[in-house]
Amino acid sequence: MYRQRIRHPKFQERVVSAEEAASLIKDGMVVGMSGFTRAGEAKAVPMALAERAKKDPLKITLMTGASLGNDLDRTLAEAHVLSRRIPFQADPGLRKAINSGEVMFIDQHLSETVEQLRTDQIPGIDIAVVEAVAITEQGGIIPTTSVGNSASFAILAKKVIVEINLTQSETLEGLHDIYIPSRRPTRQPVPVVSPESRVGFPFIPVDPDKIVAIVVTRKADSSSTVLPPDEDTRAIAGHLADFLKYEVKSGRLTNELQPLQAGIGTIANAVMHGFIDTPFHGLKMYSEVLQDSTFDLFDAGKLDFASGSSVTLSQSRYEQVIADLARYKHQLILRPQEISNHPEVIRRLGLICINTALEFDLYGNVNSTHVGGTQMMNGIGGSGDFARNGHMSIFVTKSIAKAGKISSVVPMVSHVDHTEHDVDILITETGLADLRGLAPRERAQTILANCVHPSYRDELGDYFNRAVVRGGHTPHLIEEAFSWHNNLRLHGTMKP
Amino acid sequence: MYRQRIRHPKFQERVVSAEEAASLIKDGMVVGMSGFTRAGEAKAVPMALAERAKKDPLKITLMTGASLGNDLDRTLAEAHVLSRRIPFQADPGLRKAINSGEVMFIDQHLSETVEQLRTDQIPGIDIAVVEAVAITEQGGIIPTTSVGNSASFAILAKKVIVEINLTQSETLEGLHDIYIPSRRPTRQPVPVVSPESRVGFPFIPVDPDKIVAIVVTRKADSSSTVLPPDEDTRAIAGHLADFLKYEVKSGRLTNELQPLQAGIGTIANAVMHGFIDTPFHGLKMYSEVLQDSTFDLFDAGKLDFASGSSVTLSQSRYEQVIADLARYKHQLILRPQEISNHPEVIRRLGLICINTALEFDLYGNVNSTHVGGTQMMNGIGGSGDFARNGHMSIFVTKSIAKAGKISSVVPMVSHVDHTEHDVDILITETGLADLRGLAPRERAQTILANCVHPSYRDELGDYFNRAVVRGGHTPHLIEEAFSWHNNLRLHGTMKP
Repeated sequence: MYRQRIRHPKFQERVVSAEEAASLIKDGMVVGMSGFTRAGEAKAVPMALAERAKKDPLKITLMTGASLGNDLDRTLAEAHVLSRRIPFQADPGLRKAINSGEVMFIDQHLSETVEQLRTDQIPGIDIAVVEAVAITEQGGIIPTTSVGNSASFAILAKKVIVEINLTQSETLEGLHDIYIPSRRPTRQPVPVVSPESRVGFPFIPVDPDKIVAIVVTRKADSSSTVLPPDEDTRAIAGHLADFLKYEVKSGRLTNELQPLQAGIGTIANAVMHGFIDTPFHGLKMYSEVLQDSTFDLFDAGKLDFASGSSVTLSQSRYEQVIADLARYKHQLILRPQEISNHPEVIRRLGLICINTALEFDLYGNVNSTHVGGTQMMNGIGGSGDFARNGHMSIFVTKSIAKAGKISSVVPMVSHVDHTEHDVDILITETGLADLRGLAPRERAQTILANCVHPSYRDELGDYFNRAVVRGGHTPHLIEEAFSWHNNLRLHGTMKP
Repeated sequence: MYRQRIRHPKFQERVVSAEEAASLIKDGMVVGMSGFTRAGEAKAVPMALAERAKKDPLKITLMTGASLGNDLDRTLAEAHVLSRRIPFQADPGLRKAINSGEVMFIDQHLSETVEQLRTDQIPGIDIAVVEAVAITEQGGIIPTTSVGNSASFAILAKKVIVEINLTQSETLEGLHDIYIPSRRPTRQPVPVVSPESRVGFPFIPVDPDKIVAIVVTRKADSSSTVLPPDEDTRAIAGHLADFLKYEVKSGRLTNELQPLQAGIGTIANAVMHGFIDTPFHGLKMYSEVLQDSTFDLFDAGKLDFASGSSVTLSQSRYEQVIADLARYKHQLILRPQEISNHPEVIRRLGLICINTALEFDLYGNVNSTHVGGTQMMNGIGGSGDFARNGHMSIFVTKSIAKAGKISSVVPMVSHVDHTEHDVDILITETGLADLRGLAPRERAQTILANCVHPSYRDELGDYFNRAVVRGGHTPHLIEEAFSWHNNLRLHGTMKP
């Protein structure tokens, strides 16, 4: 059954068990695996590696595109296989090992990892493990539901293991566009000039001699964990739609808007879904992860084209999309994350970027990663690539969390991932703050008026008023700036 | 004498006094003026405006390239002419008005201001005032010692005032390369592929009918305020040279390095000057401001080419460079700051970026702007454009300030301009910390070992050790994170 998927004439003999392939990975190695937001990760080899480590302990540096599905990060962390993890994760078990200091986590802008690898600024890849739909006659690797960093990992690695996943539809072939920027200092422009631009190969070109093992697998991708829209996320989507309608009315945008990027997760998915009920049409996406909402918008006739680095869907959506892939295929491209998140392309296309904040402060600085300033949640992911370089940088969050014990709007964020320079619009369910062209004191006033939950508004206003008395371009009471976070630490609530 | 500099046949009759030109500026207008780091600013019209405001008060929004010379920002602030100021300044008098809340200052990445103007996301320019060497037969404006935002200001403004400065040498003609990115969503790649790329016009192309007034001036640029190298800055330069030599020895760089960017100011100038005593050669710069050190490196035969947005020199260097400009000219280009600082070009060329920190913390977050977290110093300038997108992002500072009352290395920075994601190398006179590929706890250890002044090392180590006990990916004692800054506020020293 799998033989037609391994088309290179010499490669049939390289098929081995997952255990045998995993045995190529030695203690201390740097391993680059496919996988981006629970899509297209190598599945059998990491499981076999975790099993093996129970009897034969080893530690590796694991690099991926982004987060892995099938609980692989948890399984590898619990087997104590990971000494270092780069550049993103989203697993509660691994998170625990990161926050305890067992696993060294290097939290990177998703466009930068392979740039650093290519210039030997971080240790090079010993072995790449890449999930594939098939291998071409020439040995090219056809990725599955994500591209992520797989192409550069395979190209830069000393050896490559390919997992042919029989549950991944062969209709995925042709969806990918693999373009790798040339080496510096003679690099030429990345030729992507629209979300539809096809500029590379539909497979990962790799020296066939480097493919040392092929494993055949039958485990499906994990489903997306996004929750359906609720009252708050619908309110956030409504504020965004009203704002964009006003921008159109003011002549700053047309009803086609500009290409859209949306971060992963429940809120961003709900916000994108909300575009169904707007006058906007002929939309395009140039994003990282294509979620259920992308296909909702295709089906509603709102979206013309979507470029991403992975497709991460709920179970039911996944089955429908794969069954109908021939219908969607001419409207889709999957790219390496270096290209989906490239500052050059993001700036050129003029994206409207929608990402999720963990918390933001009076002046519009955003924390995307650290709970209480210390505990890593997932990582910055691509939010920095987009927020810095887009036409318009929007952050969304609910105004409170934990039944009101936490305010998402605070005097000063306990960790900064996006500075006030990179944040144009903030939205919570209570309203929208348009910070463009405003100085910090003005930013504070519009945030206070629009984005703060009523149960925290007076206290935050009081902090601001007292800080203004002391003065400064960005007024703060430095001795009190984290008092809300400290209350939470000591008493389980930000309330005094 | 000035007639040969005004070559358009109809323009002689548009010559007016500075007062007359300034009278075109009305209360509430947005005015875009030339000027970048004390170079090439319009001089007569803003002075006349400040004079007029004494009798006839008015408020304007003033946009420039960057900081102005000839005390213009102070003069305008003291005349209460400025309601808003965008995107950078470096004047003690204006700083005071910003920190008191009188002037609303919008502190922006220097590559972004005209992108926001072009898309009407900030209020449009009513009048542009641009210093010029000459006006061409077709009405093109030939800038002087800076380009900054002048080109887009003139192109986007409703009306343009040109100041022909007779003290600016006519040999400056031909130095400039004016390229303006096309409008989105059909923008093509910026075609700059090396520091030497010439891709535009040697003048600002502008509709001649918009040039409504021409003022002839004779006031020179202000001299640079950089101080000569001292023992500490020489030590910083030495650490950087040793590090880069190690990178060459390790095969990650060659002796030609990669194109260099250096921020403005005494330390960055001293560090660049230090390259004279290194084995590096055939160097190129792709930077914002070309300071004395650029010409020191030309004269030492180390530097082959320099691209910038302005030339800001000491008095003696200025006189020598202008006298010998014919000799340097084939090695120099001045570009719009949108291009000198463009993320696309910075990433493509793979710059080594050297910028100055006000303070940095245990984990490598950098504060470039806010004293004590509240008081604006100058602004982020181009440091974010370069630190985010370069091949290698280096920040330099002395380990202490104010005779040891301030440590430049603190538990947590009181304001974040550059997150840990954007900082690769930190250097003080005590040593260099190479943060590439390190997790926060590892970053802290190398910073503690290398960059902290001995008088603060034990206390900072103690903070870190106690924070680690509490745990987290980025360990902190949130209730104590700003205790050093609070000590400084209350007692004039960070010491407890």
